[in-house]
Amino acid sequence: MIDVQTKLVGLLGFPLGHSLSPVMHNEAFRRLGLNFHYLPIQVSEAHLKTVVAGLACMNFAGYNVTIPHKIRIMGLLDAIDDQAEAIGAVNTVVIREGRATGYNTDGAGYVRALETEGGIVVEGRKFFVLGCGGAARAIAMTLAFKGAREICLCNRTLAKAHDLAAEIDTRVRSCCRVAPMESAAMTAAVARSEVLINTTSIGMHPHEDRLPIEAGMLHRGLIVSDIVYNPSKTRLLAEAEAAGCTIVPGLGMLVHQGVEGFRLWTGLDPPVAAMFAAARERLGSF
Amino acid sequence: MIDVQTKLVGLLGFPLGHSLSPVMHNEAFRRLGLNFHYLPIQVSEAHLKTVVAGLACMNFAGYNVTIPHKIRIMGLLDAIDDQAEAIGAVNTVVIREGRATGYNTDGAGYVRALETEGGIVVEGRKFFVLGCGGAARAIAMTLAFKGAREICLCNRTLAKAHDLAAEIDTRVRSCCRVAPMESAAMTAAVARSEVLINTTSIGMHPHEDRLPIEAGMLHRGLIVSDIVYNPSKTRLLAEAEAAGCTIVPGLGMLVHQGVEGFRLWTGLDPPVAAMFAAARERLGSF
Repeated sequence: MIDVQTKLVGLLGFPLGHSLSPVMHNEAFRRLGLNFHYLPIQVSEAHLKTVVAGLACMNFAGYNVTIPHKIRIMGLLDAIDDQAEAIGAVNTVVIREGRATGYNTDGAGYVRALETEGGIVVEGRKFFVLGCGGAARAIAMTLAFKGAREICLCNRTLAKAHDLAAEIDTRVRSCCRVAPMESAAMTAAVARSEVLINTTSIGMHPHEDRLPIEAGMLHRGLIVSDIVYNPSKTRLLAEAEAAGCTIVPGLGMLVHQGVEGFRLWTGLDPPVAAMFAAARERLGSF
Repeated sequence: MIDVQTKLVGLLGFPLGHSLSPVMHNEAFRRLGLNFHYLPIQVSEAHLKTVVAGLACMNFAGYNVTIPHKIRIMGLLDAIDDQAEAIGAVNTVVIREGRATGYNTDGAGYVRALETEGGIVVEGRKFFVLGCGGAARAIAMTLAFKGAREICLCNRTLAKAHDLAAEIDTRVRSCCRVAPMESAAMTAAVARSEVLINTTSIGMHPHEDRLPIEAGMLHRGLIVSDIVYNPSKTRLLAEAEAAGCTIVPGLGMLVHQGVEGFRLWTGLDPPVAAMFAAARERLGSF
């Protein structure tokens, strides 16, 4: 029932295309009997400022922010959470009494998925991160905050890896190194790592046959995680499984960033298994 | 299912309290299988401009406007329909490619209800209108547009009746007269009229025992309509029925103003009976 007490949560992006967030959140709202609805709102860059101002005056508890607005939105909010400030991007906004505060739950969602499905804690571990885009920033910055012992950043454009490493080392603490793609340093870094994370889109549908790293580099005991969730088991994860690695599929990061957002908007713990099931079912229908 | 194709329709007002429009429209959307949702959005006067600007850039097909924004909104839209301009108020806004156009479907909704439930056409008829507020403006102006032969306006503050009469006579054509409350002129005007319309809130819940006019003035054959819809049969309508009048309850105006809005937002004819049933059921739950 939609009535005057209904609270709304939006998803701002452009173009929006398929998204798992509406079914995932709406299922969680329904399970808890909350009068909340999650709505995709396609907004172009030219209109972002106008829409952000309007939402703050409406019955919105907040919204998610996705491509291409995660950085630009930061200049339009009333406050930014420290972690989001360090990551340099906002994916979750909470509206309280007309004031909009930006958060980033991507990194925390990734860590929660890794700890739950990979069975480890981040503190003291060595990580190898493929890619240096927005997802890598959120993940690597959060790993550093959580006490990772070493984070090796590996990217086609090496300067970007150096920049991110320097920023993490300065903002959090010195724990980063970089490795050029297809180098001896890269091979050595992967061999030394306990967790490998693909943050690139390589292997995403419709290019399921592609691999972001040579399969031969994956060693038994390595935890391999992929932020790509379509397909749900990427070729990287299949090769890793065959090599005796523990795998952490991308859907967990997506669901857990939503879980964190849900907590921020409602103050309640959502039914995580139901959110996974709703997301999986929707993914199957794409 | 709420997804990226979902179109929204809002209801802007402050405070919103109970409203029949959400269930009425959502039931019609559901019956036609349209991916539309109707949402109450409580907005204060201070924020109206910001929200109107935001909605035009979002996935809203339009919105209804209610108290206290029906007049103020006119200065915030890109265009105003002629009929709404004459009425001087907007209750329905349509957003097309980022442009917001204001309409008024209150008068047309009233006329449709009167013609359907009263079994007459407006053209050539004589009307007696109690009250001179916003509803009276919308109704009387529309009756004049539709060819009413005479409209007698009767109001506690007579100057308001003179002002509205002069405006209708100038904008549409000379068809208005006025009558002071509790005067011989009023008695004569009611006796001469074919349709009596209560546009005041007298008789509305929780003051169901009140009457806007002496019951003795109601004559057999008169069509008596009341814009009050809670209770569904006001004391005025009950007295009118006892006096042998045809009665037209207020719910029809509410439903038909919504029917007109539905057509403007979707381009489709809604299931009117289903909208009535949904509104009646909701009304019963207040």
